[in-house]
Amino acid sequence: MKLIPERKQRLGDQLYGQILEQIVDGRLREGDRLPSESQICAAFQVSRPTVREALMRLHADGLVTTRQGSGSYVQKRPSGHLTRLTRISDVAGLLRCTEVRMALEERSALLAAERRTQPQMDVIARALDVLRASFQRKEGQTDADYAFHRAVAAASGNTVFVEVLDHLNDTIQQAMAVAHGITRDGSEERARRVMEEHEVVADAILRRDAEGAGLAMRYHLYRSRQRITDRQRDL
Amino acid sequence: MKLIPERKQRLGDQLYGQILEQIVDGRLREGDRLPSESQICAAFQVSRPTVREALMRLHADGLVTTRQGSGSYVQKRPSGHLTRLTRISDVAGLLRCTEVRMALEERSALLAAERRTQPQMDVIARALDVLRASFQRKEGQTDADYAFHRAVAAASGNTVFVEVLDHLNDTIQQAMAVAHGITRDGSEERARRVMEEHEVVADAILRRDAEGAGLAMRYHLYRSRQRITDRQRDL
Amino acid sequence: MKLIPERKQRLGDQLYGQILEQIVDGRLREGDRLPSESQICAAFQVSRPTVREALMRLHADGLVTTRQGSGSYVQKRPSGHLTRLTRISDVAGLLRCTEVRMALEERSALLAAERRTQPQMDVIARALDVLRASFQRKEGQTDADYAFHRAVAAASGNTVFVEVLDHLNDTIQQAMAVAHGITRDGSEERARRVMEEHEVVADAILRRDAEGAGLAMRYHLYRSRQRITDRQRDL
Amino acid sequence: MKLIPERKQRLGDQLYGQILEQIVDGRLREGDRLPSESQICAAFQVSRPTVREALMRLHADGLVTTRQGSGSYVQKRPSGHLTRLTRISDVAGLLRCTEVRMALEERSALLAAERRTQPQMDVIARALDVLRASFQRKEGQTDADYAFHRAVAAASGNTVFVEVLDHLNDTIQQAMAVAHGITRDGSEERARRVMEEHEVVADAILRRDAEGAGLAMRYHLYRSRQRITDRQRDL
Repeated sequence: MKLIPERKQRLGDQLYGQILEQIVDGRLREGDRLPSESQICAAFQVSRPTVREALMRLHADGLVTTRQGSGSYVQKRPSGHLTRLTRISDVAGLLRCTEVRMALEERSALLAAERRTQPQMDVIARALDVLRASFQRKEGQTDADYAFHRAVAAASGNTVFVEVLDHLNDTIQQAMAVAHGITRDGSEERARRVMEEHEVVADAILRRDAEGAGLAMRYHLYRSRQRITDRQRDL
Repeated sequence: MKLIPERKQRLGDQLYGQILEQIVDGRLREGDRLPSESQICAAFQVSRPTVREALMRLHADGLVTTRQGSGSYVQKRPSGHLTRLTRISDVAGLLRCTEVRMALEERSALLAAERRTQPQMDVIARALDVLRASFQRKEGQTDADYAFHRAVAAASGNTVFVEVLDHLNDTIQQAMAVAHGITRDGSEERARRVMEEHEVVADAILRRDAEGAGLAMRYHLYRSRQRITDRQRDL
Repeated sequence: MKLIPERKQRLGDQLYGQILEQIVDGRLREGDRLPSESQICAAFQVSRPTVREALMRLHADGLVTTRQGSGSYVQKRPSGHLTRLTRISDVAGLLRCTEVRMALEERSALLAAERRTQPQMDVIARALDVLRASFQRKEGQTDADYAFHRAVAAASGNTVFVEVLDHLNDTIQQAMAVAHGITRDGSEERARRVMEEHEVVADAILRRDAEGAGLAMRYHLYRSRQRITDRQRDL
Repeated sequence: MKLIPERKQRLGDQLYGQILEQIVDGRLREGDRLPSESQICAAFQVSRPTVREALMRLHADGLVTTRQGSGSYVQKRPSGHLTRLTRISDVAGLLRCTEVRMALEERSALLAAERRTQPQMDVIARALDVLRASFQRKEGQTDADYAFHRAVAAASGNTVFVEVLDHLNDTIQQAMAVAHGITRDGSEERARRVMEEHEVVADAILRRDAEGAGLAMRYHLYRSRQRITDRQRDL
């Protein structure tokens, strides 16, 4: 079992993906102890910093937990849907992208509440309607979701936010497709919750509540990220 | 006096730039009252939302202040150096870019403190040394500054932060060039302060103080932004 | 119509309370324009800063909105339940207290995720069970809610957080009683949502996700605050 | 060597204090390795969670650092002045109090920028003048410092912030006295820096820059905290 080094930066991702894959397909089960750092180094022929990076990400995603003095354990298994909807090797990329979005979009939502014009608010409101309809039809959520987030970025009055979002467009839409794929298979309750998170953001922007808008956007992306990695579909 | 519409989005910037120019060259002086919204609409033949957007930015930059019920007043005059170092029409772009950087880099600094490897820390430390030397030689600060911020982004372990930074590269370097141009003409005290802000960031990353690193980076960019628009060179 | 000055600080609150009362009892309706600042000054015989303070709070609570150049308008009517459950004159106090809690408890939740011991986590988990049971029984929610928040503060490992919470105990419990009174009359959906917000906080503390815990706590208190002032019971 | 248990909560503090004392008086030196958790448990006859709590605080204060797989090491020695100015056993209390202040005062500064009246701004400005004069006279800084922070809290328009500050009054003033004692012995540069941090806060409140005011206050308290525990007087 050896990782094929592409670029140095990507080794940690590959290792992350391989361990994640074993958790998803059940070779590693909840409560199982992971091999030690040295064992992983040897098994995958990677350096210790690479192993630590992969473990730190698994930890950040809530997939493994550390018990002081006794190593790392599998904490939870992500949704089986996840593997049906995307190649495991891409999941690390999706999560990295969400991390950047949390930084960017918290701010664009906050600024949108401060600066949005009435026409910009109208675009956001219409995007929300389209998103609601797409949830009812159970199709088109990804496009509608992206349009909503782009409308909020545009309402920040700072074109650089839109530019960066468009630059990340492919990855963001892929992450959204995965998340909505899981949601579509999930309960009504879950779809309602996703819709409501968007409504709280839009409502704060409407009321010019800058802090609330930033907070609601951050919370929405935090929960989205959890929905991707979490086994419980109804999260 | 009419603004030539390029793209709709840019009208507010142009208006911002024109008013800023009048403040910088002294046609509008500290304490002067700006024309009313309607007067500005008429003078520049732009819509009311465009005027409001421009005023809101001038306000956010601390250049004008609002006295409830009696309009907007010039609060302070930015450095005369500013106009020597960049076309006024670009200043709005520089400030927009800094706004996005505050969101992105607060987070990359925070994550760098959590995840940086020893080699990544070494790169940051070396970038700090190069920056210190450039301040002493009074040349090369812009390259050294960018290298420092890129090293921090790389240490976040998330390549998307580096990718976005590189995407914004030109504008960031231009903003840094302007800021360092002003600093170079300024007091020793000012150069020491800029250097120290970078040291506080690096020190927090070294100590794995995630919250401190994010806070110090955010504060550094906040002060940088003020140094660009502020008339007082010793800020 | 004249306000009886108690202590200077409280005048703004009294005025806030009187305007709020008129909104609640329907004398001022959604979309109605408020009298101008000068008219309010004259009607209540208070100074302009007092009027502005009261308006700013009504604005912050999302009860009135400002249309530039044309004054303040009633945006929404808080729950009629609110007036049954507390004297209007106390609402300002409840909201003030929540404002302080948002600052304090975001931090205590964040620190709890970093520092909690296993016994402290057990206390939080038990408090959550008691809260869930109280929602099912539809009684005892206030005590259970306070016990949960106190358990989180204790898990921060910093006794000062607990001390300050206990110092504010009376007001906090009163605010909780009002909120739960409204929830009790509300839909099943609403009770489920309140319960879920607490679960997200506890789950993040369990996973030692410091940032998530702070975010989830802040979001919970933000939504609680909205539930107090909002007319829509199902918020 | 055994700790006398007062209240359970305080055991971690006592242990923290004892280890800190050994670092200050030089029994433990920079680069020295601390005994293992088990050895500390045995030496002080305390439980493992108590040891971990103490280590985590020393770590948070940047006094010790952890090298994965090989234990904890002394990172830096706090100022010798610290021990002259306060009993070591109180330092933990001072730091705990600062932790709560960071949460509270970031918010009160932010709200002050949004809501302050002109008279409240005047009180802040005068407090700043008194603080500046006290630095020049090298006496009275503690009272002046507290007056400044109280004036900011009052300008938040929320009396609960003032109430909580006054409730913590004794501990805050003691922490300030220690910090100013160290500053007084330090360089001119250091006093200038402390003064400047206060000015940045006041300036943001003056310009109604809410986000800047919160950020500047948080940064000021973060740096104050570092100044208490750091050996380098010129921080």
